[in-house]
Amino acid sequence: MNVEALKGRRITIVEVGPRDGLQNEHVNVPTADKVAFIDRLSGSNLPVIEVSAFVSPKWVPQMADASDVFAGITRRPGVRYTALVPNLAGLDRALAAGVQEIAIFAASTETFSRKNINQSIDESLAGYADVCKRALASGLRVRGYLSTAFGCPYEGHVPPQRVADLSDRLIQIGAFEVAVSDTIGIAHPAQVAQVLQVVLARVPIEKVALHFHDTRGTALANVLEALSIGITTFDSSAGGLGGCPYAPGAAGNLATDDLIFMLDGLGVETGVSLGELSKASAFIERQLDHKLPSRYFQAVSASLKAPTTRRT
Amino acid sequence: MNVEALKGRRITIVEVGPRDGLQNEHVNVPTADKVAFIDRLSGSNLPVIEVSAFVSPKWVPQMADASDVFAGITRRPGVRYTALVPNLAGLDRALAAGVQEIAIFAASTETFSRKNINQSIDESLAGYADVCKRALASGLRVRGYLSTAFGCPYEGHVPPQRVADLSDRLIQIGAFEVAVSDTIGIAHPAQVAQVLQVVLARVPIEKVALHFHDTRGTALANVLEALSIGITTFDSSAGGLGGCPYAPGAAGNLATDDLIFMLDGLGVETGVSLGELSKASAFIERQLDHKLPSRYFQAVSASLKAPTTRRT
Repeated sequence: MNVEALKGRRITIVEVGPRDGLQNEHVNVPTADKVAFIDRLSGSNLPVIEVSAFVSPKWVPQMADASDVFAGITRRPGVRYTALVPNLAGLDRALAAGVQEIAIFAASTETFSRKNINQSIDESLAGYADVCKRALASGLRVRGYLSTAFGCPYEGHVPPQRVADLSDRLIQIGAFEVAVSDTIGIAHPAQVAQVLQVVLARVPIEKVALHFHDTRGTALANVLEALSIGITTFDSSAGGLGGCPYAPGAAGNLATDDLIFMLDGLGVETGVSLGELSKASAFIERQLDHKLPSRYFQAVSASLKAPTTRRT
Repeated sequence: MNVEALKGRRITIVEVGPRDGLQNEHVNVPTADKVAFIDRLSGSNLPVIEVSAFVSPKWVPQMADASDVFAGITRRPGVRYTALVPNLAGLDRALAAGVQEIAIFAASTETFSRKNINQSIDESLAGYADVCKRALASGLRVRGYLSTAFGCPYEGHVPPQRVADLSDRLIQIGAFEVAVSDTIGIAHPAQVAQVLQVVLARVPIEKVALHFHDTRGTALANVLEALSIGITTFDSSAGGLGGCPYAPGAAGNLATDDLIFMLDGLGVETGVSLGELSKASAFIERQLDHKLPSRYFQAVSASLKAPTTRRT
């Protein structure tokens, strides 16, 4: 690859730590600490932060305080604060909280759709069409997630053509962008190229984001491949917050810290301060019962504790 | 990048877990367990295994049993079993142990050379020239390591021209290959391209191997970039065994498991069985006081423990 050609490229990072990350942590972080975390994230100049989810507290108790979190954060001008919305009831809560951008989430496989949201794919898209209609009429932007796009914990292989079709349907019902998501972190760079080739035949490249999990260590290599293809939006989670619900103890979301370290090296512009981001990661790690999985963050944390030279 | 073009490419993995890995573990693994680990590694069909180091037990107590380990392993035909040799005394021990391939290790920076082997770079190369002379006369092959080629924990930036010069000098004194090594795991893909451009102007590509550490999460992305440039030999450590002596608690060597998972996906041929390798990783993890850092290995271990579907 001609990595030199990536220099000066501008990409957008969507920080999903407060939602996709905290949702998958065992510890229930107090609302005030979520607010402080999000304000630290915006302080690092991240352009998009997924704050919470207006889902049923019965199903996802970690997100029960979505409205309070939105009420508590200091909204920094220019930062997009988003939230997951599963249905019209969730949209009502989001509107009441003053949310200006929401995200809907469909799956690439019927089994995952059933298990995750208790609906078939078609049922979920019909419901999301209503959500989009009212959200757009209210002046909101809608982002679409497409889960299990590179593999399903129940069905295994997922045909790229189906990923392309569903991505297109999410755009058709009103999403401005689809985050094609590797929910179980099984993608490798060749698969990224294969899936994108099919998806980009249906959806314009500026509407395609990628959401990688680092469960098998390939997330940054996948980003590198996707960058070379021209993708400009990537999701990640501060410190790699979240873990993987399908493999307890394994890594989940790609760590924002690792992503920015590589992008900084490539000369790809994100606008994010890696130093400030590390402070946000350090803050949230103190609220958890385990170390964050980000390689970069752990290397920096370690070197902050231990001198790298012997001082005599 | 045209990842499709990588399909069918044949690369060589140099497994450094028993040496570079165990050398950096706190736990002193009993000789019999090292032997069992190495035999499991060769059982996975790894083509090259760095077994131990004939260094002073005073400096590296974990490698004191080098001769016993060589005496204990079952040498599988076709597998190259190598060992680090610092000087003529070490070479004598290696020859007595029936070793057929050795490795010498120089550094890219004076400070690292002084701190690591208590010699200037020139002094070390003069000594290695003698080692090579006698080793080659005895029918041995000699591999060269060049540490801190992408950054030094003491000096920081390392000029690529110096890396090229020193790589060439290692070849000139008799090494058949130089493992250009990112000792502190700080390289990113753009730097890999920059350093290789300068090194390959001096050393034929088939004589250049890469030795990455995953301390900041970029190792597989670096491998992907190096593959696209045409490098065919990569070092790695089963399970990511070893850690980073310069950042305690952080990841060290690139995990062989993660590397093979990506290469299998790319259709790059290694000849190694990932399933058998995971068994070797699982075996050595049981001897340690912590989990192995390999992402792939932890994902597989977790899914072996917990069902991926809810059974009702």
